[in-house]
Amino acid sequence: MKPNDINRVKEFLLNLQDKICTSLESIDKGSFIEDSWQSNKGHGITKVIQNSSIIEKGGVNFSHVKGKSLPCAASAKHPNLEGCSYEAMGVSIVIHPKNPYIPTSHANVRFFIARKEGQEDIWWFGGGFDLTPFYAFEEDAIYWHTCAKDMCQPFGEEVYPKYKKWCDEYFYIKHRNEPRGIGGLFFDDLNEWKNKEDKFEFDFEKSFAFTKAVGNTYIETYCPIMERRKDIKYTQKERQFQCYRRGRYAEFNLVYDRGTIFGLQSGGRTESILMSLPPVAHWDYDYHPKENSAEAKLYTDFLILKEWV
Amino acid sequence: MKPNDINRVKEFLLNLQDKICTSLESIDKGSFIEDSWQSNKGHGITKVIQNSSIIEKGGVNFSHVKGKSLPCAASAKHPNLEGCSYEAMGVSIVIHPKNPYIPTSHANVRFFIARKEGQEDIWWFGGGFDLTPFYAFEEDAIYWHTCAKDMCQPFGEEVYPKYKKWCDEYFYIKHRNEPRGIGGLFFDDLNEWKNKEDKFEFDFEKSFAFTKAVGNTYIETYCPIMERRKDIKYTQKERQFQCYRRGRYAEFNLVYDRGTIFGLQSGGRTESILMSLPPVAHWDYDYHPKENSAEAKLYTDFLILKEWV
Repeated sequence: MKPNDINRVKEFLLNLQDKICTSLESIDKGSFIEDSWQSNKGHGITKVIQNSSIIEKGGVNFSHVKGKSLPCAASAKHPNLEGCSYEAMGVSIVIHPKNPYIPTSHANVRFFIARKEGQEDIWWFGGGFDLTPFYAFEEDAIYWHTCAKDMCQPFGEEVYPKYKKWCDEYFYIKHRNEPRGIGGLFFDDLNEWKNKEDKFEFDFEKSFAFTKAVGNTYIETYCPIMERRKDIKYTQKERQFQCYRRGRYAEFNLVYDRGTIFGLQSGGRTESILMSLPPVAHWDYDYHPKENSAEAKLYTDFLILKEWV
Repeated sequence: MKPNDINRVKEFLLNLQDKICTSLESIDKGSFIEDSWQSNKGHGITKVIQNSSIIEKGGVNFSHVKGKSLPCAASAKHPNLEGCSYEAMGVSIVIHPKNPYIPTSHANVRFFIARKEGQEDIWWFGGGFDLTPFYAFEEDAIYWHTCAKDMCQPFGEEVYPKYKKWCDEYFYIKHRNEPRGIGGLFFDDLNEWKNKEDKFEFDFEKSFAFTKAVGNTYIETYCPIMERRKDIKYTQKERQFQCYRRGRYAEFNLVYDRGTIFGLQSGGRTESILMSLPPVAHWDYDYHPKENSAEAKLYTDFLILKEWV
């Protein structure tokens, strides 16, 4: 990693935030509002859209924080880094559309540096994107995963299957015995790639390029799905089911999500972290969809571990 | 503890469950439905009322489970018991009324036994009750705490202040820097009392009597509050605020509540554990009530650490 690389990552993240908001605004016709914040941990720009024509609640957040002691939620691979001083920046996106035929989507790209006195800095990238439909279309699921796979292709044959599987494992709601949605990609602790001799080596440029591709592919893939489904008519019945399923989203984010837990543990800005929570969620005791209904189809055909491409 | 004491506790818990449901039904005029369940961990009776005249969602759950390895969420005082085999039984109650002028209430009484080969069984009681208003009345808060204090009085002067403080500390939403509600009582790891010589000694009968008093006082105190507020007229505005505040309830239960985490960690019945979640919750980005409004009053006059009696 070269001295200017942190700035390059930051520039990419800020541009990505703008690009995502602009893309969504061009479909929704509404506007994100912008909240800049500063604290003793760092600063951020939270962009939020609420009760707009298509998006019921959406957040596209940039943050850049520093801390004296890395919380344990930050790294799965490097538990020995717990307690190191660190620097972290990233963009997190969660979009909750109003129409139950448009899936909720989530993406995140992040860059971490951990520092220990007398040692070289340790850096890594993480991120991914995943899709959470309510009334799902096979066509959309295949499209979502095809774009993910195509994006990974230049980085190696093994990349898509590995990060697709990681995503399935990560976005799994254990206490429900259910995946959160149809997945996508998830990666963490990324700082090395196989070289031509099939050995692993640290490679900042390739890791950064991959992370950039993830951020860009997310929005370029989600927007066409939104466009395709935004005019489907729905009734109160579909809204009810969407709100019920959004309960699962809240459960996952509050019980399991490392980004959320890292944010809350490290004293981050609560309103920005919990922007990911749905605008409305329902919990009905022991609800089960009627057999062979459109609602049951979500469980039987989509919330399963499946190779979509 | 004598051989028959487990049965005595179980009988009390089952009677308490019945008494609570009957009391609530007599005000609400609706009926709890009953779900009995059995699993490899144990069995339970979940009683639920939904979309009734006063109660939007309420659960009164009994469970009796055994396990080979006590999860760390089970005991604050005895971390060394982690991994012991255990037996646990309890009744948990969460009532979410529809009218925003009736507070949400929660109570729990539980009995744990931890067993290690070659050692005497370790047992303890835990529980408490707490109140979460939306549009709050000082009169109700004082009444709630007066009943709690009066109940504690026969067990010693120090009991109410100690368990009131523990409740304030336990039901605190750190990432919001807010108490969940106006508190009440919370106790755990209870197996000893001071005797006449001012020394601590194990005392099953007194611990059990205290736990019984907590369960009974909860319902005898909550019902009059419900009765008093059930006919107050409200509009969509008050419902919105109630749903927004219920988001905090979901946050607390999923992020901090030891009962919930213990249940999910120990592979309990998810629908019974998460019965506590509100029927509807809203998350609005960076909402703040208008100064001097009825909504602001909740924050300034009630969600503060305060001696109510």
